[in-house]
Amino acid sequence: MLPDQNLLRIPGPTPIPPSVKQAMSRPMIGHRDPEAAKLLQEIKPKLKKVFGTKEDVLPLAGSGTSGLETAVVNTVQPDDEVLVVVTGSFGDRFDKICEAHNIKTHRLDIPWGEAVTPKQVKQELIKHPNIKAVFLTYCETSTGVLNPIHEIAQAAKEQSDALIIADGVSCVGGVETKMDDWGIDVLVTGSQKAMMLPAGLTFLAVSERAWKVIEENKRPRFYFDLRTYRDKLADDSTPYTPALSLLFGLNQALNLMEEEGLDNVFKRHTLMKKMTRAAFKALDIPLLTTDESASPTVTAVKPADFDADEFRKIAKEEFRLSLAGGQKHLKGEIFRVGHMGYCSPADVLQFLSIIEIALVKAGKDIELGKGVQAAQTVYLNN
Amino acid sequence: MLPDQNLLRIPGPTPIPPSVKQAMSRPMIGHRDPEAAKLLQEIKPKLKKVFGTKEDVLPLAGSGTSGLETAVVNTVQPDDEVLVVVTGSFGDRFDKICEAHNIKTHRLDIPWGEAVTPKQVKQELIKHPNIKAVFLTYCETSTGVLNPIHEIAQAAKEQSDALIIADGVSCVGGVETKMDDWGIDVLVTGSQKAMMLPAGLTFLAVSERAWKVIEENKRPRFYFDLRTYRDKLADDSTPYTPALSLLFGLNQALNLMEEEGLDNVFKRHTLMKKMTRAAFKALDIPLLTTDESASPTVTAVKPADFDADEFRKIAKEEFRLSLAGGQKHLKGEIFRVGHMGYCSPADVLQFLSIIEIALVKAGKDIELGKGVQAAQTVYLNN
Repeated sequence: MLPDQNLLRIPGPTPIPPSVKQAMSRPMIGHRDPEAAKLLQEIKPKLKKVFGTKEDVLPLAGSGTSGLETAVVNTVQPDDEVLVVVTGSFGDRFDKICEAHNIKTHRLDIPWGEAVTPKQVKQELIKHPNIKAVFLTYCETSTGVLNPIHEIAQAAKEQSDALIIADGVSCVGGVETKMDDWGIDVLVTGSQKAMMLPAGLTFLAVSERAWKVIEENKRPRFYFDLRTYRDKLADDSTPYTPALSLLFGLNQALNLMEEEGLDNVFKRHTLMKKMTRAAFKALDIPLLTTDESASPTVTAVKPADFDADEFRKIAKEEFRLSLAGGQKHLKGEIFRVGHMGYCSPADVLQFLSIIEIALVKAGKDIELGKGVQAAQTVYLNN
Repeated sequence: MLPDQNLLRIPGPTPIPPSVKQAMSRPMIGHRDPEAAKLLQEIKPKLKKVFGTKEDVLPLAGSGTSGLETAVVNTVQPDDEVLVVVTGSFGDRFDKICEAHNIKTHRLDIPWGEAVTPKQVKQELIKHPNIKAVFLTYCETSTGVLNPIHEIAQAAKEQSDALIIADGVSCVGGVETKMDDWGIDVLVTGSQKAMMLPAGLTFLAVSERAWKVIEENKRPRFYFDLRTYRDKLADDSTPYTPALSLLFGLNQALNLMEEEGLDNVFKRHTLMKKMTRAAFKALDIPLLTTDESASPTVTAVKPADFDADEFRKIAKEEFRLSLAGGQKHLKGEIFRVGHMGYCSPADVLQFLSIIEIALVKAGKDIELGKGVQAAQTVYLNN
């Protein structure tokens, strides 16, 4: 096939918009020069809107996992009791981080592919009244589930003063997020998903109430100490060398979101989810999640009568279309399509039309064009 | 829609592959430094293969039109008799250039959308035995016709010693071209079509027999004097400042063609033509040209019951899909889809699925997915 063409439709890293690439190529600047301060000044108000918070959103140089660990080490201490909701691989990661830090973890395991309910969380909080923090996954990348963090935060607060800490890595920037209104205390995301950047930045925002906990937390920490990031960002600076080219790109990615309009960005993602799901339904290929619990950013498909990994291999070799496989016990059982960030309905129609061909090549008996037709119909009726 | 996404499917300029963009961003070099000579050394053998010639292919800084004028002013003189075959807008341009240079022009007008036949050319040569050169268009961009220049050159040579001069701007690099074997004396192309580069370079190759004519041509010319380019390129140099960033890009574009394999490049273009045509046929939307005369690089569609320009406007506003309109008397009558250069079957499926939606929005009654299905079927049966 055409060299140089890569259709990257995994749930992150995602493709980089040309103007973001261009911004990242700007000549390097001194990180203590006024230009760097001006850059952070420009970024700050735009990032707040994406998170839905009046608090500063703190960018750290690190992967999403570093952001999750930062959330843990700032808010809880060894022997604190916490609840970790595990709806998939990334809930499990939160649990592993807590374990590594000797946190006393109550683990609420939900079958992979399902969302956690507010009631389930509330029950755990009743069972364990000393829980200091609830760790949640907003979009569970491994299953394509969007957990109802708004409702969960509400339910939890009726029962407990536990902090609500959410991993928004694979959806913030692509789905509506109102951190303050919803009562989320710490929200973490990464740069390489709906934020349309390469990996390398993680972002954290912290509620007033969580700042109090963080201030009092005596746990040793240095690079991950959120207080230093907060204090420096108040002066338009960073405690350590910032990943400047990613910040150049971030500023432009945020400009693109503002140009489109944040509401339109969210509507686009919802539309892409609906188009993708309609196509697989029309082709009679089962989806892992229900419509209600499905994320606008990633769709997990659970083939009943063909090999998911063999199918992905065909799509990759034939069209350089990258799809993701399943993780842990879903390995070989599902494949996942990312439709977030720099991805349009036109791109959805493209991957669907390719997927149909790859399905035929994988030996699946389908009517060509039927999935595309269903997606087109969703688009037109939108 | 998604800012920063532009689906450029006009018949040139065409999208630039990422690695070519990157190559063009290389730091500037001195055009008389050894690096520049090395660059030309690398380019030379690869360009020859694209043209199908043992002669050096000469790159000039200029648009395709400058290449056409270069072909004219080097090969013919005022009061020379020439035949200009006009199958569309670019044949007409060759005629206008000849007129501007006071060449005695016999014009063979072919209805737009049809290819010229060898017989028609031969008849003109019988009628006008003093014709010194025949100007032909290989792919007529304005109609999507690929003229049979091989057969025409053969037929012409049976009748006359006239030079055969072909404009290959919108197809060379995308369709098989065997300049030497076919008896083409001067072949011109541009950089911004199947060559996967921005506009700004034109390329000319000249047969031994045409060089003799050019040597003896006393007509005043300076920048366009092909002899200076030939002599300098023999020493891996250029007479005037070369467009170096385009040459950086050209070297990489040629590397991509070699990586894919030139034969595979041509097969890909033929496949994309077949997919595109099958889709419009399935949707019952008339095409301007026959299958036999259609170019692998551009398809002209002639709607019977909807407004071509209104439809294009919808495709552009809705999906940022750029399609071309008709030129001269075909304005408003046709639209044209470019599928050349950095364009894959996956891109064809994408523009077809978008076009179907735009057709519905333009009020055309079609069955969604039907065109895509036809194209998918062509792909699978290929």
